[in-house]
Amino acid sequence: MKREIVKQLQRIVGKDYLTTAPEELLCYSYDGTGREFPPEAVAFPADAEEISAIMRLANAALFPVVPRGAGSGMTGGSLPVAGGVVLSLSRLNRILEIDEANQIAVVEPGVITGDLRKTVAKRGLYYPPDPASLKFCTMGGNVAECAGGPSAVKYGVTRDYVLGLEVVLPDGRIVQTGVRTAKGVVGYDLTRLFIGSEGTLGIITRITVRLIPHPGAKKTFLILCSSISQAATLVAEILTRHRPCTLEYMDRTAIRIVRDKLPFALPEGTEALLLLEVDGDAPGVGIQAAALQEFLAARSDLLAVRQADQAAEIDALWTARRAVSPAAFSLQPHKISEDVVVPRSRIPELVLFVESLAAEHDLTIFTFGHAGDGNIHVNIMLDKSQSRQVSHAEMATRALLERVIRLGGTLSGEHGIGITKAAFLPLELDAASLAVMRGIKNFFDPNNILNPGKIFPAA
Amino acid sequence: MKREIVKQLQRIVGKDYLTTAPEELLCYSYDGTGREFPPEAVAFPADAEEISAIMRLANAALFPVVPRGAGSGMTGGSLPVAGGVVLSLSRLNRILEIDEANQIAVVEPGVITGDLRKTVAKRGLYYPPDPASLKFCTMGGNVAECAGGPSAVKYGVTRDYVLGLEVVLPDGRIVQTGVRTAKGVVGYDLTRLFIGSEGTLGIITRITVRLIPHPGAKKTFLILCSSISQAATLVAEILTRHRPCTLEYMDRTAIRIVRDKLPFALPEGTEALLLLEVDGDAPGVGIQAAALQEFLAARSDLLAVRQADQAAEIDALWTARRAVSPAAFSLQPHKISEDVVVPRSRIPELVLFVESLAAEHDLTIFTFGHAGDGNIHVNIMLDKSQSRQVSHAEMATRALLERVIRLGGTLSGEHGIGITKAAFLPLELDAASLAVMRGIKNFFDPNNILNPGKIFPAA
Repeated sequence: MKREIVKQLQRIVGKDYLTTAPEELLCYSYDGTGREFPPEAVAFPADAEEISAIMRLANAALFPVVPRGAGSGMTGGSLPVAGGVVLSLSRLNRILEIDEANQIAVVEPGVITGDLRKTVAKRGLYYPPDPASLKFCTMGGNVAECAGGPSAVKYGVTRDYVLGLEVVLPDGRIVQTGVRTAKGVVGYDLTRLFIGSEGTLGIITRITVRLIPHPGAKKTFLILCSSISQAATLVAEILTRHRPCTLEYMDRTAIRIVRDKLPFALPEGTEALLLLEVDGDAPGVGIQAAALQEFLAARSDLLAVRQADQAAEIDALWTARRAVSPAAFSLQPHKISEDVVVPRSRIPELVLFVESLAAEHDLTIFTFGHAGDGNIHVNIMLDKSQSRQVSHAEMATRALLERVIRLGGTLSGEHGIGITKAAFLPLELDAASLAVMRGIKNFFDPNNILNPGKIFPAA
Repeated sequence: MKREIVKQLQRIVGKDYLTTAPEELLCYSYDGTGREFPPEAVAFPADAEEISAIMRLANAALFPVVPRGAGSGMTGGSLPVAGGVVLSLSRLNRILEIDEANQIAVVEPGVITGDLRKTVAKRGLYYPPDPASLKFCTMGGNVAECAGGPSAVKYGVTRDYVLGLEVVLPDGRIVQTGVRTAKGVVGYDLTRLFIGSEGTLGIITRITVRLIPHPGAKKTFLILCSSISQAATLVAEILTRHRPCTLEYMDRTAIRIVRDKLPFALPEGTEALLLLEVDGDAPGVGIQAAALQEFLAARSDLLAVRQADQAAEIDALWTARRAVSPAAFSLQPHKISEDVVVPRSRIPELVLFVESLAAEHDLTIFTFGHAGDGNIHVNIMLDKSQSRQVSHAEMATRALLERVIRLGGTLSGEHGIGITKAAFLPLELDAASLAVMRGIKNFFDPNNILNPGKIFPAA
């Protein structure tokens, strides 16, 4: 990057808010994929106007700009794969407004999702999306990827809560999209075009979300199964009768890697675990929990059903659940993580197929995730220094994704495409859809300077 | 329209499925706005392939194509304002699939919304969107306009239930968008770009929707208020404590025009009416209804609170509510209907402003609609043969929309922009947003042949 450009960037954000020091660049070169692409500079703009000025400069001098929240993405969305400037949104970190009467909040993109959830909870309100990384991931990243989480089975994903956005377009123009009302259908839905666009169409600088009354009460069940197909079948049965706010699943390997974090010993032969919660007001939860208890008690084939009542026990269960993904590295140094989704009724076929893939390719593959909405995280573990493992992992990945599509599923439920799944996009999207998406990208960003190299397979 | 083009259209759809007879064209020249624009031909294609062929012909010969469902739209979305061919989707009227295990349905655009709701209800499933026209409006039109309805306050609008689409693009290519799973974030969100695009970006030929378990039980309350501000304030209070599935509002004029359809006499001094429902499973509804009853009983200022328990009484209430819009023509021959939305807490300001507008301009203006989500239908009645009324109605409309924007609201909650609100779009959208939307239209439809003259203000 030319000295002159660095100087111009410094002039825009101020000397203290631009760095080209290699040790600092390193901190902005990785994300949740474990892959590393160092940027040439990192800018820490203060507001939309500074971001707008950076985009105008980038269009004149033609360097890539890559927006970044917490870097917790799982598919490389924030990696500067073509170099250029990483735009850290960490200074845009204010909760600007909580409007209790109208149940909305306005936040900047650098606000940590968990902080928003806690802050609105104090006022009796609830922001449902709860990605596993909620203690450190940011709202901007959540919107860019359309993040989900365990609560999606009842409450939906980020898309379902965003009412409007402020976005800096690749050419530097600033647009306001959407509404701050419960409904709105004025013009094309730019809000949802930006949601899930993985930072390739614009840089989100303000987010208006709707909130709902806090459910208040919750009851947690743990169900231990003797086989994954038993668990998968049970999920489908539960969902025709009950409306849980969480229905998480772990297979035996996922259980094994977090076993020491679980608040109790597991019976012999536990092959799968379901973590189920119901929420609502206290009387409503009582009714739901009683109905579930009755349904589960009638199932004599289950290994154990346990109702967790103590806060400490529930916390421990969730700590264990959220630790599955990071703890996987105790098995092997590398992980290929696919967050595929299948129609719920096809979960048994999917998990059995994954077992056969693991055997066929002599790989450790484990599954966990949001069984309630068919969003299963399939984790292929490997040591990238072993070329045989690498080639088998690649074969297994392709076979998995092809099967998911044949089962009526989709390649990604909540992690996005980024760089890790771009090559597989044609498995799911027809040529005309892909052409339309490329055309939209080209319309917004004809110089291809905003987060280049993401989503689309190499031409 | 040249004879040669008519012949080519006949070749595509078959002789029986194309008409140019003036008396038949007349039937396809109007919609819910009461305005009339005759097309030059009406085609009744059988499937996406025929529609694709028509679009290729239209691009070659440059004639407008206007897709049409039931013609129940309120803003002119289906009116052939520039002539050309109306594409009636009445033959694409099959419910293709109801997948109970995964709680989804796949339908063609000509399916009547109420028919889908009834059909899935037989299997214990629920498709929530319930526009007032549900007995005759179609799913394709609902998607094109992103229709809402009374249930939106709890369940959301059409956008919240559509998972995926098949769409014929303006150039004739056919794309599949979205998923048939609970989650999906693969590529840009084309599904929601088409939803609410008012038939200007593509012709919807297949719709995949998610369903939810049928709530089963419901309780209906009628609340009579002595002033509109009392009713408006009550709405905000109810929504902080309760979660109704309906919270409809009528002012005294709306009540007056449907009074003979109500199943009981109204007490003296009734100035506003709230129709409130709670739904869910039977025990849950019992709890909700008891809490509401207690809350309302403590309000000694209300004229009357009545729980409607009999099916016949509830039906009569809904018949009256749905009759408001059509029955308005008993007041005056013409109606300007605005479905503005304001943040709920601003409803009292809005309804009082409407009263002052009516007095200032000596017009009958009445309000009713979905108070629960701030979506108030404001109806300005007039006789278009009276030029003074016309000019006052125009002034009142502009003043209303300007006030709505100042209150943090939006011009349309569920009816769309069409032709009736296009001129007002710049009140709400910034210049850059409008330019982006125009650019998207131009990218999809460079020849401007698909439903031209809609949404955008004349340049």
